[in-house]
Amino acid sequence: MIDVKNMDLMQLEKLCKDIREKIIEVVSKNGGHLSSNIGAVELIVAMHYVFDAKNDPFIFDVSHQAYTHKLLTGRWKEFDTLRQYKGICGFTKPKESEYDYFVAGHSSTSISIAVGAAKAIKLKGENRLPIALIGDGSMSAGMAYEALNELGDRKYPCIIILNDNEMSISKPIGAISKYLSHIMAGEAYQKFKSGVEKILSYMPESASYMARRAEESIRLITPGILFEELGLEYIGPVDGHNLKDLIQTFTTAKNMKKPVIIHTQTLKGKGYEKAEGHYASWHGVGPFDVNTGEIIKNSSAKKSATQIFSQHLLELAKEHDDIVGVTAAMPTGTGMDALIQNYPERFWDVAIAEQHAVTSMAAMAKEGFKPFVAIYSTFMQRAYDQIIHDACIMNLNITFAMDRAGIVGEDGETHQGVFDISFLNAIPNIVLFAARSEEMLKNSMNFAYEYQGVSAFRYPRGGYLLDDSEFTPSPLKLGKGEILHYGTSNVALIGYSNAVGKANKIREKIAKHLDATLVDLVFVKPLDEQMLLNLAKNSKKWYIISDSSKNGGIGDILSAFLQKHNILDVGVVSFEYPDEFIQHGATELIEDELGITVDKISQKILLDN
Amino acid sequence: MIDVKNMDLMQLEKLCKDIREKIIEVVSKNGGHLSSNIGAVELIVAMHYVFDAKNDPFIFDVSHQAYTHKLLTGRWKEFDTLRQYKGICGFTKPKESEYDYFVAGHSSTSISIAVGAAKAIKLKGENRLPIALIGDGSMSAGMAYEALNELGDRKYPCIIILNDNEMSISKPIGAISKYLSHIMAGEAYQKFKSGVEKILSYMPESASYMARRAEESIRLITPGILFEELGLEYIGPVDGHNLKDLIQTFTTAKNMKKPVIIHTQTLKGKGYEKAEGHYASWHGVGPFDVNTGEIIKNSSAKKSATQIFSQHLLELAKEHDDIVGVTAAMPTGTGMDALIQNYPERFWDVAIAEQHAVTSMAAMAKEGFKPFVAIYSTFMQRAYDQIIHDACIMNLNITFAMDRAGIVGEDGETHQGVFDISFLNAIPNIVLFAARSEEMLKNSMNFAYEYQGVSAFRYPRGGYLLDDSEFTPSPLKLGKGEILHYGTSNVALIGYSNAVGKANKIREKIAKHLDATLVDLVFVKPLDEQMLLNLAKNSKKWYIISDSSKNGGIGDILSAFLQKHNILDVGVVSFEYPDEFIQHGATELIEDELGITVDKISQKILLDN
Repeated sequence: MIDVKNMDLMQLEKLCKDIREKIIEVVSKNGGHLSSNIGAVELIVAMHYVFDAKNDPFIFDVSHQAYTHKLLTGRWKEFDTLRQYKGICGFTKPKESEYDYFVAGHSSTSISIAVGAAKAIKLKGENRLPIALIGDGSMSAGMAYEALNELGDRKYPCIIILNDNEMSISKPIGAISKYLSHIMAGEAYQKFKSGVEKILSYMPESASYMARRAEESIRLITPGILFEELGLEYIGPVDGHNLKDLIQTFTTAKNMKKPVIIHTQTLKGKGYEKAEGHYASWHGVGPFDVNTGEIIKNSSAKKSATQIFSQHLLELAKEHDDIVGVTAAMPTGTGMDALIQNYPERFWDVAIAEQHAVTSMAAMAKEGFKPFVAIYSTFMQRAYDQIIHDACIMNLNITFAMDRAGIVGEDGETHQGVFDISFLNAIPNIVLFAARSEEMLKNSMNFAYEYQGVSAFRYPRGGYLLDDSEFTPSPLKLGKGEILHYGTSNVALIGYSNAVGKANKIREKIAKHLDATLVDLVFVKPLDEQMLLNLAKNSKKWYIISDSSKNGGIGDILSAFLQKHNILDVGVVSFEYPDEFIQHGATELIEDELGITVDKISQKILLDN
Repeated sequence: MIDVKNMDLMQLEKLCKDIREKIIEVVSKNGGHLSSNIGAVELIVAMHYVFDAKNDPFIFDVSHQAYTHKLLTGRWKEFDTLRQYKGICGFTKPKESEYDYFVAGHSSTSISIAVGAAKAIKLKGENRLPIALIGDGSMSAGMAYEALNELGDRKYPCIIILNDNEMSISKPIGAISKYLSHIMAGEAYQKFKSGVEKILSYMPESASYMARRAEESIRLITPGILFEELGLEYIGPVDGHNLKDLIQTFTTAKNMKKPVIIHTQTLKGKGYEKAEGHYASWHGVGPFDVNTGEIIKNSSAKKSATQIFSQHLLELAKEHDDIVGVTAAMPTGTGMDALIQNYPERFWDVAIAEQHAVTSMAAMAKEGFKPFVAIYSTFMQRAYDQIIHDACIMNLNITFAMDRAGIVGEDGETHQGVFDISFLNAIPNIVLFAARSEEMLKNSMNFAYEYQGVSAFRYPRGGYLLDDSEFTPSPLKLGKGEILHYGTSNVALIGYSNAVGKANKIREKIAKHLDATLVDLVFVKPLDEQMLLNLAKNSKKWYIISDSSKNGGIGDILSAFLQKHNILDVGVVSFEYPDEFIQHGATELIEDELGITVDKISQKILLDN
């Protein structure tokens, strides 16, 4: 624990410098969120100086900017293990430290948490103050607004530090962003305020009604009018890299006993010139060379599924005028940036707003367009009701492209894309499928385009395990799976999505003892009933290999399928992920711990048969 | 189709009167949404007069106010079948009429739909204009704001008619509501506006900078400042019962080619004096006597599960200071009104804001309180990510009370509470259970209070099928089911939640041919593995009776359970709901169509064995 409270300004500034260096050093080795973290160093140091990190809930929105907080609260030494297996998590995590108040990896939860904490504090009669640190990008999500709506009404004391770096992950989108920029250019307002006061001084005393009204108008034209209209006190803008100003402002706010929004302006990437001001490219990075700023390339030459998706969607969009699409603040992450650049009238970034993304595209489908909605598997959870209520009940012609399905590695438990099969399979009118390799992803996208109805396909973070050359890629047909290898044993390995590659590796590994049949399910919904019924005749042991959660996953779905057809002589064993939140770290290490690497599954199957 | 466009004002007013009478007459017989519908008659008639219902997308938020629209678009005669099986749906429904643009039953989707439609219209180069009609209550949901955020930035032409009746279903909550009331009291602003203009006229020409600033300030102090800050044109407030004013305003807005918010003020329940101004009681009603306003009591004397919940939570809250709770704009619907009234410091209505409701209560759990989050099963879909990300990853001590689980009857497809088991079972760290009868619901709530962790229990709309007297109620133990009757045959009926009553009726019905074992699962997660393993020894045919969706439901879960334990001699047949959206109408009729009434299931089981 670094005792910032007893430091003077010079010491604090030195500390900020050290923190910045430490972050750059570790992130350049381990990868991680760079620009948001080095942009928020002074903000967080000032928070620790003014508030009580032990008692006041420090709530970090998304918490991808909380490295400074971690370094200040006894994790300097372990920080070298950032994002590594069993190492320091890239996000706040109460299990890691008592100073981490809440888990966060998805955006825009911080104000709700602050409101809840404030209610609790009031009820307990305690003298603590929730402090939320939230970026301007997170302000676009409806959830933030739902919380502001209650806060502005009930006025629980809490502090919301708005870290305005004029960007979320990508370029600023939306009216709120424009509004904030407007404030930034708003010195004129300040001048006008004194102007009006001057006019008032010329007026006769008797004009008191007018004066009162005018005063109200002055209040109204201060920069934070939007927040003030919502019932919140507003202070700002404040230079978010000026420790002295920050400390002063935070101290003022602390004593107000009201909900206060402090609007700070920072430069994302501050202090590492290669990253300063660059929008998306320095947000989340892999290892890089600190001196040159060059990303250290992964030895694998494989294209990522995202790249395939982006390039092929561009092809499709060229060919078919009716294709439109959306991303929710992840243009680079989803590869939609290329589409937006080429077809700005047909592809949109709607900011962090998954609910609106889905429903607005549902309306475009109603109007005869074919929307591709590109959202990470984990963030689709935010739009679950919209998928049901606005896409599926309407039975519209729309497709959901779910990137980062499966285990995502270093980002960890908040970002794992393992629930999508379970939560989507429950919904009527939706078709679910996935590709096993690059060319098959293109085929999947062709199918998604041709299919008239709601569909969703998933693809992994990074590249496919399986090369196209292993099994000839084929066009998709609705509800048709593929038997890739007919084995002579009664064992079948049933793979899905990227895990078909893993299933094939297992097949090869056990081949000299056991010739297993290899199945690519291709469609989870509808199932290829004919193929599976035939399979059940010869293969009496089905092993499920899929990078999805067991509960409600493929094993469950196939077990139910067998029961539905009254087939009682086929055993199903699922090697999907167990019913627990899966930690961060390299996927191989995680799968090893869970006992589901190629080697471990192979051993189990051989022991079993 | 009633040709309003060729009517004069007097004829239109007469039409409004007729519509109101028709709505009151039909709702008094069939039940339905009364006050919202008779409050919006003039608004909708004026919409049809000014805009083109055939071409302009008419988007009704929640669409519980769209009866007038239905009556105007060729459904006057069929309107008598409102909310009945195969009759007119209580909400808009494209399958019912080409004039119904979109399905809506959940709130706050309309602005997203308008934005999507506007994008499509622009891309197609058409001359159509999306019109969204949205109540002030729906403005609290984050989704509405996500859409406004994009709309204010990209400025697609569309019209948003804000129907401000100072209430959602219940009392107005939140900063937006307060803000709107403020506008209503805002005549002073108008006066001040002319005042400032007068001051300006005294100033020398040279003061042009000041004048410009002052002009800006005038713009700022018009009533719609909040919307204007978000980049939207604002007109209002307009009397929403004055046809002439409405027609004039709509015509102005139509020609603006911009996103415009028209703020109208209406009286909910207008024209039926017994309902006028009453908040919750006349929102959704059962049949009533038009003359006296008295609700026609259902012959059943059963208490509803909601009543049991409300009364028992009051008992628990009296006893345990740490219990807190929340509803999202459904205080009467969930019975939380009694709690809010008795303990205003511990129970809250946070408006239509399910995401915020869940996460703010998660923070209270973190602070040591035990929140009861009361949300309808269907609306829990809105907070799916928050349950995963903020409650379950944090593994907090919080419980979700899911009202209206199962089939809800007349509200139909948008409101069915049939997916909760499937989407919640996928989440780690959550415990799922349900009661079979009144006393068991109390026991469930006691268990929910005692259990330290995330839990969710469901209960039906209306009363329980099973009386407490049938099987002695017992306290719940984590993961413990109950065998209610040991049969001599190898058939087991496995019931869950309210459907245990149905399972028991089936048991009685088939008893003289077949003595079936009756099981109350009680817990879906974790399952009572010991009980089920024992059951599997003697009962080789398991019939699942549960008011939940088949996909991912109890049948699937138990099929997977058997596979996990390598039990291959037990057959599972699920009588849960099929993989389709279930229409509105009396539950008995719906279940008859689906072949899952007590009689039909009994027949199937007897034929099977």
